[in-house]
Amino acid sequence: MKRILTTARNGTNAVFGRRPRCSTSESKSRERQRLVILGSGWGGYSLMKNIDQRKFSVVVVSPRNHFLFTPLLASTTVGTLEFRSIIEPVRYGRKFRDERDFHLAEAERLDLEEKTVWCRSMLDESNRYAIRYDKLVIAVGALSNTFGVPGVREHAFFLKELVDAKAIRNRIISNFELAVQPGVTPCRVKQLLHFVIVGGGPTGVEFGAELYDFISQDMSRLFPMEVNDVRVSLIEASQILSGFDEKLRKFAEKKIQQREKMELVKGTVSEVHRDTIILQDRSEIPCGLVVWAAGLAPRSFVLSLGVPKNKQQQLLVDQSLRLKADPMGSVFALGDCSCVEENPMPPTAQVAERQGRYLAKSLSQYSDATHSPPMHFKSVGMLAYVGDYQAVAELPQFKFGGFHSWLLWRSAYLTRLGNWRLRLQVPIDWFKTFFYGRDVSQF
Amino acid sequence: MKRILTTARNGTNAVFGRRPRCSTSESKSRERQRLVILGSGWGGYSLMKNIDQRKFSVVVVSPRNHFLFTPLLASTTVGTLEFRSIIEPVRYGRKFRDERDFHLAEAERLDLEEKTVWCRSMLDESNRYAIRYDKLVIAVGALSNTFGVPGVREHAFFLKELVDAKAIRNRIISNFELAVQPGVTPCRVKQLLHFVIVGGGPTGVEFGAELYDFISQDMSRLFPMEVNDVRVSLIEASQILSGFDEKLRKFAEKKIQQREKMELVKGTVSEVHRDTIILQDRSEIPCGLVVWAAGLAPRSFVLSLGVPKNKQQQLLVDQSLRLKADPMGSVFALGDCSCVEENPMPPTAQVAERQGRYLAKSLSQYSDATHSPPMHFKSVGMLAYVGDYQAVAELPQFKFGGFHSWLLWRSAYLTRLGNWRLRLQVPIDWFKTFFYGRDVSQF
Repeated sequence: MKRILTTARNGTNAVFGRRPRCSTSESKSRERQRLVILGSGWGGYSLMKNIDQRKFSVVVVSPRNHFLFTPLLASTTVGTLEFRSIIEPVRYGRKFRDERDFHLAEAERLDLEEKTVWCRSMLDESNRYAIRYDKLVIAVGALSNTFGVPGVREHAFFLKELVDAKAIRNRIISNFELAVQPGVTPCRVKQLLHFVIVGGGPTGVEFGAELYDFISQDMSRLFPMEVNDVRVSLIEASQILSGFDEKLRKFAEKKIQQREKMELVKGTVSEVHRDTIILQDRSEIPCGLVVWAAGLAPRSFVLSLGVPKNKQQQLLVDQSLRLKADPMGSVFALGDCSCVEENPMPPTAQVAERQGRYLAKSLSQYSDATHSPPMHFKSVGMLAYVGDYQAVAELPQFKFGGFHSWLLWRSAYLTRLGNWRLRLQVPIDWFKTFFYGRDVSQF
Repeated sequence: MKRILTTARNGTNAVFGRRPRCSTSESKSRERQRLVILGSGWGGYSLMKNIDQRKFSVVVVSPRNHFLFTPLLASTTVGTLEFRSIIEPVRYGRKFRDERDFHLAEAERLDLEEKTVWCRSMLDESNRYAIRYDKLVIAVGALSNTFGVPGVREHAFFLKELVDAKAIRNRIISNFELAVQPGVTPCRVKQLLHFVIVGGGPTGVEFGAELYDFISQDMSRLFPMEVNDVRVSLIEASQILSGFDEKLRKFAEKKIQQREKMELVKGTVSEVHRDTIILQDRSEIPCGLVVWAAGLAPRSFVLSLGVPKNKQQQLLVDQSLRLKADPMGSVFALGDCSCVEENPMPPTAQVAERQGRYLAKSLSQYSDATHSPPMHFKSVGMLAYVGDYQAVAELPQFKFGGFHSWLLWRSAYLTRLGNWRLRLQVPIDWFKTFFYGRDVSQF
């Protein structure tokens, strides 16, 4: 393998790969190909855990040093689960042969011909450096889509990362605490305790469900009077849980509409302000929290790549997940940032995870991905929690909504958790929530 | 009870106590005295939990809505325990008859004659209001003392609250992550991985102990090469654990000095910069983290009170904890912000907790505290963890250091935790740390 010393764009001298003191592991790694994975989400992490270590020397570049179990993220926004109960440190998930093979950094630029990716450290913005690869896998995921609505970035909360969940939790608790203070008018109380969710996909619906549980199970006990002023609005332009079967959609809709404090609003948001949102029909709705869960947008790294993309700006890949634009056949993309042109798959955790496993296998078996069989995806099903111990489950065999689906929802995710530390902690969190209530501390 | 409408200093109209809709609970509370507690630390929280609800209508004003089990705070800085495993939401600790009896606010000014305390909301800075009391208990605790050393506030970390612990944890992990990145010089690596603790009291020593465990048990596995560059310096001007018996002090000192990566530095810090500290002998020490645990300083509310204080600016109280300056005998002070002039007690959690219980009892038994018997304090002992499953224990019956003391340390704190939720979670955290290692995610 070639050792290069490159000068990154901003002039920082950046050394690729290993420093001299690590000569033994280097000689070993010479036989192995260098596989660089961008991202530690569902796609990147599953690839990283499943790749054959004997054939590849793995380097991971990610702006966060943990893997996040996103299907349970909504549960952490109200304390049903604790934040650290649903993450795995990347360094535990994969025993790197060299600790310098994980980079807490963001990819900024890619040179397909030089087989080099430029990164910027998340810890020291001036530290930019290049990493050379034999194979590169782009699994950087996507951002939340604001659809250009003014004020979203400034005033709304997304629900993609743990920091988002933490901010939402603090805001909900703060609003209740502020609502009981002297000098706060009844009108302001109503505004503070109106929680708005934009987007009726699984994220929005599940967040609404958790919020409903939190209010009916905990806040009603702690703030018995203020809870009368609580209102939750779920705003969706077309229909909620659009990927689900109609029977299940109706079930979920009915559940939400039956709830006194909850409302399904058909509409489109045109502006977000500090304390209000404005709908397209110009109606102004005061609110104390806006959670924006309205779709995906490309990351700036993906935008920067001058390669073929679809309308959603996803990278086009073939059925072996190879980047269509790459002349050398050594760059792959998977998960939310990519699209298999011949066989598009939904942008879900399940797809990304399976693509990661597929690629791990095909890279291990076929040194040249040209000969690898195309990936086939068949969904094992979809689940969404709708609150009050009820969920909807759409499986290949059957579709149903209710308490049984909720049991399935909990047990399915419990078994999918990546390690025993989490599989121990998550049921304990559930137990504590059930018996002692959720922690309402704000810090 | 008089209902007043007062205009706070900044002109906000602020209504005292209850809004009209709550007329029933008000009529009940008319028979009871209004006890206002400032603070939710050891003193305020123990008073709040033990006070007779039939005699007093309790109002709590605190800048945080949880009680923090401070003796285990150092364990959260490295993830031995999780943050929420050592806190109790105030609203769970006391079932308030009216949810508006807890204020997430800070006391700003006190009018002894009008029996009124002015508060500023922590959630809306412009919201200032007055609260009237029959009895007032000042239990606001203290701040960390910078001793006027330049740069401490800007660059050092204190260890008083959960936010401090969280910031320290993120900094330690970040420094390790940065140390493995390309372009970081060996000299910078040494700087990043030099952790400095200023102050050899129990806080400093226990933080050092936890840090040592973290490095030797977790980081040595995850960062096997970088760990060689780690250095921990404990800077103390006189002697560590000065409140302990000499035998135990020597034991702790020896433990620390035996450790390859740890160093006891006799000295005084004169300046703190971003990446270095300067000692009084002008020696400059590069470092990546400074934890400042060097003593207590008064809060601005205590400073603002024009009443007799001691040299450390603590409020002088008599042996029944009544504020000496209060002509009406209705203001009390306890914990770190106070000093019993005739019988000074150390500024510890144990003292504050006992004072809270004493006051709860004496207020319930004697409507006029003049007749209450003075408080007697006899320490049940002191414990400090020194790392590597070793602790020092100074009990009335015996003094010893070692593994047995560590078992005592863990079991003593476990039984002192305030509720079953914590008593369940803390051993689980210990179990997870022992078997799976600490979570090294940064977020």
